[in-house]
Amino acid sequence: MAKTLKLSYLPYTLKLKHTFTVSSFSRNETPVVLTEIEYDGKVGYGEASLPQYLGETQESVMGFLSKIDFRQFEDPLDSENILNYVDNIEEGNNAAKASVDIALHDLIGKLLKIPLYKYFGLTKPVNAYTSYTIGIDSKEIIKTKIDEGNDFKYLKIKLGRGNDKEIIETIRSVTNKPLYVDVNQGWNNKQEALEMIEWLFEKNVILIEQPLPKENIDDIAWLNEKSPLPIIADESIKRLNDIDKVKGIYSGINIKLMKSTGLREALLMINKARDFGLKVMLGCMTETSCAVSAAAHLSSLADWIDLDGPLMISNDLFDGISYIKGEIKINKLPGIGLIKKF
Amino acid sequence: MAKTLKLSYLPYTLKLKHTFTVSSFSRNETPVVLTEIEYDGKVGYGEASLPQYLGETQESVMGFLSKIDFRQFEDPLDSENILNYVDNIEEGNNAAKASVDIALHDLIGKLLKIPLYKYFGLTKPVNAYTSYTIGIDSKEIIKTKIDEGNDFKYLKIKLGRGNDKEIIETIRSVTNKPLYVDVNQGWNNKQEALEMIEWLFEKNVILIEQPLPKENIDDIAWLNEKSPLPIIADESIKRLNDIDKVKGIYSGINIKLMKSTGLREALLMINKARDFGLKVMLGCMTETSCAVSAAAHLSSLADWIDLDGPLMISNDLFDGISYIKGEIKINKLPGIGLIKKF
Repeated sequence: MAKTLKLSYLPYTLKLKHTFTVSSFSRNETPVVLTEIEYDGKVGYGEASLPQYLGETQESVMGFLSKIDFRQFEDPLDSENILNYVDNIEEGNNAAKASVDIALHDLIGKLLKIPLYKYFGLTKPVNAYTSYTIGIDSKEIIKTKIDEGNDFKYLKIKLGRGNDKEIIETIRSVTNKPLYVDVNQGWNNKQEALEMIEWLFEKNVILIEQPLPKENIDDIAWLNEKSPLPIIADESIKRLNDIDKVKGIYSGINIKLMKSTGLREALLMINKARDFGLKVMLGCMTETSCAVSAAAHLSSLADWIDLDGPLMISNDLFDGISYIKGEIKINKLPGIGLIKKF
Repeated sequence: MAKTLKLSYLPYTLKLKHTFTVSSFSRNETPVVLTEIEYDGKVGYGEASLPQYLGETQESVMGFLSKIDFRQFEDPLDSENILNYVDNIEEGNNAAKASVDIALHDLIGKLLKIPLYKYFGLTKPVNAYTSYTIGIDSKEIIKTKIDEGNDFKYLKIKLGRGNDKEIIETIRSVTNKPLYVDVNQGWNNKQEALEMIEWLFEKNVILIEQPLPKENIDDIAWLNEKSPLPIIADESIKRLNDIDKVKGIYSGINIKLMKSTGLREALLMINKARDFGLKVMLGCMTETSCAVSAAAHLSSLADWIDLDGPLMISNDLFDGISYIKGEIKINKLPGIGLIKKF
């Protein structure tokens, strides 16, 4: 009997431990779609995380996945072909595509009986310290979160709501840890942005993500040239082809599997970014240990790591990577290294 | 007992079936160095082919290989790390580096029990027709060679010695097969080159490799813009970083493992070439079935294939890919798919 690839999927809702606020909105949960690809008795796990502002929904993801017909493929290791086919079904749907890419790679690792980083020819991550994200919140909650993130070497702070200095000073009243600052396009004036960055530079901040609206290209380039801190593109960049647009404008890019359509294109993006002299940050959405652990296998290639998604939710469905004093540890299991908890 | 990686190597001389003449020289043999990497009872095979004009010798290759200390590595699958280490030992030595890359990838495929194209996530090549190379020679010998290449759909002709039209007319007196033309920098005047290409275009020639000296960048760009046929860079490009220099100058690049330092960088080059809108030709030197079969695993990514090295020699040491009516067939064996004949 011929072996076949079987795709299945399930909508699920992630519960956030804390209400999550960035410059433009707040939320308490994140919808996801969990995927599985089965072949020859092995199952690969994948995930599409769907924060509202990215435009995909559980319905759109399941609609997209329902169009996939794997009967034309005989071997999951034929991944370039399979993922090109999936990519060409329809434009957009980046998270939906990522959920297939992640499950397929998990399956491949399981079939080959090796962790994904080995499949990619990469070194097991060492000293892969993730930042721990603190959303915009009241002083008391910020202090509570910093306490919860006590184990972590780096904190990531969301700014851009007008009370930036107050937030930083609150943080600096309790810790001197190095900070990643993510503005989520929340500033508007380049001159004020530069002054703020110069102020932040003195406060042991080490990078600034997406300070200005992504449309303000000239202002961002101006800021990046003058800034004492690297300016990292997040909202400005999703896929491989977007890198041409940020070259010379930013100092680095934040690669997230939900934007890149998964691991395969993330790797291409890392190579292209390096070639362009851009730094690489590896990030995530609110995600279970499935997608975040998948991304963690690329850690040895990243300059900065922000893979704390599973720490933000109370109903993770997987055991995957672990965090030991903020350092990401990948287990010895094949593929992504997941144990399903339900 | 810990498993270790063991590198060994042996100089060997390939005997050519016919004296091989290109625009600048002739030769009857090609020195190579054969490499082996052993780990956990498996052996990966590699090869450095050393045509004189590229500057490496058996001595330089063995000198380079003697500097490699694999004791610091525990796992051959840690290939990015291993190959970065090898690359950083010393500049240049591209063929020597390729001999390590090829052996390491063969070993990895054997350890994982999969053919290399599967390890790279690629499709098994179908309709991968290689050209069959005819060197510059007497009319009678050219006809004999065309006869020997009877099975092949495409012929590759070396021009650039002043009797180009005569050679093409000799060929056209016996076959109308599509031709790849390789000038090896043998033309000098751009206007004459364009006129020749326009003439060749009428003769069912489908591409022109390296028509002018690689230093004549403006002339090549001029020619590429006016030419009815794609102009492909060969001598102008070795490694990944060279692609920036040929963008906008050529229509495509000829990637050869002996120039690229092996499979890993060849794959990066293919991705970058695609990104730049450059066509990809996959070529080889005079090589055994070892290096040529390794390159063949990338065939599904190439626009044109010129992997006929083993057909040109009388003392191949391996069975690898086979040629069925000019189509490259990869066997089911793991890694490169080699059987050592000695």
